[in-house]
Amino acid sequence: MKHPVPGGLREEEEERVLVSEQSWRPCPKARRRLRGCLEWVKQQLFRVGEDWYFLFILGVLMAIISFMMDLLIFRLYEAHRWLYQEVGDVLVLKYLSWTMYPIVMATFSTGFSQSITPHSVGSGIPELKTILTGVVLEDYLAIKNFGAKVVGLTCTLAAGSTVFLGKVGSFVHLSTMVAVYLGKMRTSVMKEYENKFKQNEMLVAAQAVGVASVFGAPISGVLFSIEVMSSHFAVRDYWRGFFAATCGAFMFRLLAVFNSEQETIAAIFKSDLKIDFPFDLLETFFFAILGAVCGLLACAYLFCQRWLLAAVRENRLTAKLLATDKPVYTALVVLLLASITFPPGLGQLMASRLTMKEYLITLFDNRTWGLLVPNASSLADPPSKDPWGLWQEWCHPSATIFGTLAFFLMMKFWMLILATTLPLPAGYFMPIFVYGAAIGRLLGETVALLFPEGIRSEGALHPVVPGGYALAGAAAFSGSVTHSISTALLVCEATGHLSHVLPVILAVLVANAITQKHQPSFYDGTIIVKKLPYLPRIRSRHMASYQVVVEEFMERRVVALAKGSGFEEVLAALDTSADAEYPVLESAEPSSSPSSRATRAPYCTQKTGTLGDNCAIEPIMLQLSPWTSLHQAHHLFELLRLQRIFVTRFGELVGAVSRAELSGAPPAGEQRFGGAAGGAGAG
Amino acid sequence: MKHPVPGGLREEEEERVLVSEQSWRPCPKARRRLRGCLEWVKQQLFRVGEDWYFLFILGVLMAIISFMMDLLIFRLYEAHRWLYQEVGDVLVLKYLSWTMYPIVMATFSTGFSQSITPHSVGSGIPELKTILTGVVLEDYLAIKNFGAKVVGLTCTLAAGSTVFLGKVGSFVHLSTMVAVYLGKMRTSVMKEYENKFKQNEMLVAAQAVGVASVFGAPISGVLFSIEVMSSHFAVRDYWRGFFAATCGAFMFRLLAVFNSEQETIAAIFKSDLKIDFPFDLLETFFFAILGAVCGLLACAYLFCQRWLLAAVRENRLTAKLLATDKPVYTALVVLLLASITFPPGLGQLMASRLTMKEYLITLFDNRTWGLLVPNASSLADPPSKDPWGLWQEWCHPSATIFGTLAFFLMMKFWMLILATTLPLPAGYFMPIFVYGAAIGRLLGETVALLFPEGIRSEGALHPVVPGGYALAGAAAFSGSVTHSISTALLVCEATGHLSHVLPVILAVLVANAITQKHQPSFYDGTIIVKKLPYLPRIRSRHMASYQVVVEEFMERRVVALAKGSGFEEVLAALDTSADAEYPVLESAEPSSSPSSRATRAPYCTQKTGTLGDNCAIEPIMLQLSPWTSLHQAHHLFELLRLQRIFVTRFGELVGAVSRAELSGAPPAGEQRFGGAAGGAGAG
Repeated sequence: MKHPVPGGLREEEEERVLVSEQSWRPCPKARRRLRGCLEWVKQQLFRVGEDWYFLFILGVLMAIISFMMDLLIFRLYEAHRWLYQEVGDVLVLKYLSWTMYPIVMATFSTGFSQSITPHSVGSGIPELKTILTGVVLEDYLAIKNFGAKVVGLTCTLAAGSTVFLGKVGSFVHLSTMVAVYLGKMRTSVMKEYENKFKQNEMLVAAQAVGVASVFGAPISGVLFSIEVMSSHFAVRDYWRGFFAATCGAFMFRLLAVFNSEQETIAAIFKSDLKIDFPFDLLETFFFAILGAVCGLLACAYLFCQRWLLAAVRENRLTAKLLATDKPVYTALVVLLLASITFPPGLGQLMASRLTMKEYLITLFDNRTWGLLVPNASSLADPPSKDPWGLWQEWCHPSATIFGTLAFFLMMKFWMLILATTLPLPAGYFMPIFVYGAAIGRLLGETVALLFPEGIRSEGALHPVVPGGYALAGAAAFSGSVTHSISTALLVCEATGHLSHVLPVILAVLVANAITQKHQPSFYDGTIIVKKLPYLPRIRSRHMASYQVVVEEFMERRVVALAKGSGFEEVLAALDTSADAEYPVLESAEPSSSPSSRATRAPYCTQKTGTLGDNCAIEPIMLQLSPWTSLHQAHHLFELLRLQRIFVTRFGELVGAVSRAELSGAPPAGEQRFGGAAGGAGAG
Repeated sequence: MKHPVPGGLREEEEERVLVSEQSWRPCPKARRRLRGCLEWVKQQLFRVGEDWYFLFILGVLMAIISFMMDLLIFRLYEAHRWLYQEVGDVLVLKYLSWTMYPIVMATFSTGFSQSITPHSVGSGIPELKTILTGVVLEDYLAIKNFGAKVVGLTCTLAAGSTVFLGKVGSFVHLSTMVAVYLGKMRTSVMKEYENKFKQNEMLVAAQAVGVASVFGAPISGVLFSIEVMSSHFAVRDYWRGFFAATCGAFMFRLLAVFNSEQETIAAIFKSDLKIDFPFDLLETFFFAILGAVCGLLACAYLFCQRWLLAAVRENRLTAKLLATDKPVYTALVVLLLASITFPPGLGQLMASRLTMKEYLITLFDNRTWGLLVPNASSLADPPSKDPWGLWQEWCHPSATIFGTLAFFLMMKFWMLILATTLPLPAGYFMPIFVYGAAIGRLLGETVALLFPEGIRSEGALHPVVPGGYALAGAAAFSGSVTHSISTALLVCEATGHLSHVLPVILAVLVANAITQKHQPSFYDGTIIVKKLPYLPRIRSRHMASYQVVVEEFMERRVVALAKGSGFEEVLAALDTSADAEYPVLESAEPSSSPSSRATRAPYCTQKTGTLGDNCAIEPIMLQLSPWTSLHQAHHLFELLRLQRIFVTRFGELVGAVSRAELSGAPPAGEQRFGGAAGGAGAG
């Protein structure tokens, strides 16, 4: 509202201003009341907490980014397809156009993202998981990674199914970067502790947005991000995740409607599996077998993946390449991958002309391929636009669909592992998901072959639906690789198909039971290989963890400061150790002396101090006693996201426990992964 | 394997034994190998932990109980229906047969369960919630409640939709009782702490089983039980809940197949809403309005419910009845309820001849009632067996379906609240669910009336589906009453219909935003009225909770024991206070003296001790410092399920904090509910 300026203005001018104001705004009373109402509504809305509009913006923003990226990737992919067709029938040109395009894309992705920041490489989920346990990884969530990651990811995905990488993991990283950036923009009167607390809440919500805006699946987005990221979860934070994920999923699907891709809001991989008779009781047995197969393959995959990640780092040639010429490494690997998927070559046996999304759509097809007659001319044609004809890519004149599916599984196994070593921004969930769907499809088609007329139950014959097995396979394999159960729901939400939910969960549980026992999850494995701080789980049957007490494994040599110590002493302490925090004692006597007269209590101080008195000294919240059991200490570290906690006996500082000591303690130590042995443990 | 007894046996006999053994068991090598294999498999299976078969038994057992109970209730209900029809057209007889049956059932339920144990009354969820925060409620989970609750619940439910009560809450209680009983049966080498830890894990899984075996919905069973019960959740425990709930849901639906109710495993309230075009974008606006309406009604419901619960306890007449003659109170209330639902009377305006399940099936109907022509003779007929004709119960010649729906909502509002005061075993979730579905149906039919030709989007006309609104209404109302979001998924799983998931979540979020701000949840409200130990939430925008420190609100007068104190001193301490644990100091000097020379550390001891030295002294895990903030202390209590924690300064015991102090501390105190004011706070 513009008020007339008092004084310094001629009166008539002032009057004119007033008149014009009044003539433009009639009914001052009604206006005032309306304004009061609006003010009240605003207050009411903002009283719930200022979080909701922040979450709304986050959700909508990520959905728009996800959608725009999809659109751009689709255009780039179309360009590649066009180029490949237009180049004619000369095999060399065809080969060059098939291989060069992904090489250029992937190499640019590597070079661009590496030149801006090395943090943008990979999915980012292992690092996020570490951050959520309370470790500070500087710059990892800085907004400058954002541009590099968006551009790099777009190029990676535009390289298509040749490189066979996905979007989910990177999107979770992007989403958290946006959340942290938005969080910084909010003017805040919060203290540091509260801020950290708040940031964790927001990170969890942001991760849910990341998953939800890729799959358009709000509920499983929240659950998946919880399972993968956290060890403990506050129910209080549920609504944040759900709200943000719903906004994201809604916006994502809305944009598809506006873009006339879909008539209304619907699932993204909408499947038309018939729902009047989804599966017979007898089939639950095959679903359990599918779960076991997925679990075993997931074990093999995780083992090989970790082995290759380590081997690439140790091998002299690749290590040198990765250290100095990352784009060259990328180019070489992509050349190999693209040569194998070349459609007139081996590619025709693995349906390599399909995109990632088309892979899923064909594998979730509700028809039984074994019973369909393929169109003979399909191989010569470009992939049909008709989704009903897409499946013919899986047909090959000399191999049955069983042959192509088996070959696809065999080849993609090592190609996928090789692709995960590429130093470019990418997600690793989607390829695992597609791979699982192929396992399920193969088993489903086999079952359909065994019972060509369907399974007889109570007189009626019910045909086997291999699409249902593909759903279960995708959920079971991706679930066991990531050690999560909510992929069962993800599959349902992404396909809009709920009637297979029980056999899908069954398969997921069986697969998880096998994998969790033998291998750490994909993300934990990466954390171990990258040597990020990691707290191994204690299995509940490890009775010993209740008997081992803190005294036995705590670090006894703690560098402590006295409250009265001067600059010299502080400097000496800073030189002696690299700790981020130092305990401050009330008096200067060595704390280990049992005859000390003055009582002591440790405080924490930041590394900024010059003098014990006038630097930032914070009271500590908790102290352990030497008789606390390992199990209790572990529980505390997990629950409270602690980094280091001091141990006092009768008020004297006797030691400290950090994650390193905890991991090295006798029973937890068994859990550490020497190569591939040991397991993260589900129990 | 039976070995021949060496010596004391005649040789030939021995030989015969050997021969017979060999003749019966050929191929000793293969057998041995097979046995070795089986042994290995057994070891492998049991290495995962012994939990899984325990959970399997729990799930299957609860599903069988749930199914048998359903079957029995159905038979009892059929008997009532038959009686009502056979009695002829004499109005008095009809009235008597209509009212007496539920009165007898409910009165027997009250009398029987009360005579065995008063703990079996109500849903049990508020008490379970309290137990999960670490409070020990003796006998509440004893197996002797089980029989009383099963019989009582069966009778309550057999009284049908007249009493309008459900099964979910009680089933959760039953499930936990079974879990605790099974847990006791396991021989255990675990220490007390571990046992408690384990029991909590099992309780959470048991709750999931309770929900899953009623709705046949495994995923939302787990999520709903987490949201309602816990404030924090360990992701480690996820699989337990999922596994047990899947077993329960699978078995529950399997039994329906064996009983030839269903052809194969499918959702229990299977709806046939068309999925090719579930809803138009414009309709999301109406879904949001539905959410707001549900939220406001939930606030009103919660307020009235808490008010009535308190009023019934305070009113002299009802308080006397409830204290001495509970069955009389039940009989009177049920007489009132049954008189109102008498079909030739007011009952014809509220479709009172339908069961709870039929209510849901009709309300989730995929047709638009406003466009259907009712069969004129429907009122005279008994309710049709044809599910397609059931909806005609909602028709009345002089009132439109809008009239009957509105009348149903108006009357059931107070009848439902009155029913919750009945002292008998029952669940309160189902009636709330049905009520929400009716709200949604009314709004959906209104929208369908406003757009009789459907909503035009991009040229095509799409009719409005009121069934979708009923889904959203059920989820939003039940979600906001219980402060949970997972009802959105529950609705989808129970109906097997996923395409409405986004608008349903939207409605649930809007409803929750309104209710969580103004009212405590149904269960929290009951905890407050019943004066059970309760820790109010701190809203995240309560900045003050970061400034208030433990020193300001801790209890300073802590009765402590010295390590060397004798029997007399211990006895004196036991007389002075009623604490369950006492801190044990190293020396006898009063801890408040700052000049004490010996350092002190408090220990906890159980109330069994006679001497400081030879009674059970346990080391304490944690100590707070006086400068810990209220927010941090609250967080610790919530996370670690603490009951009481000691505060030390420089190693001296200076005070203790328990839940009482925490609730009374300045900013948390605002959160306490004086009558209906204040709110549990979502933020």
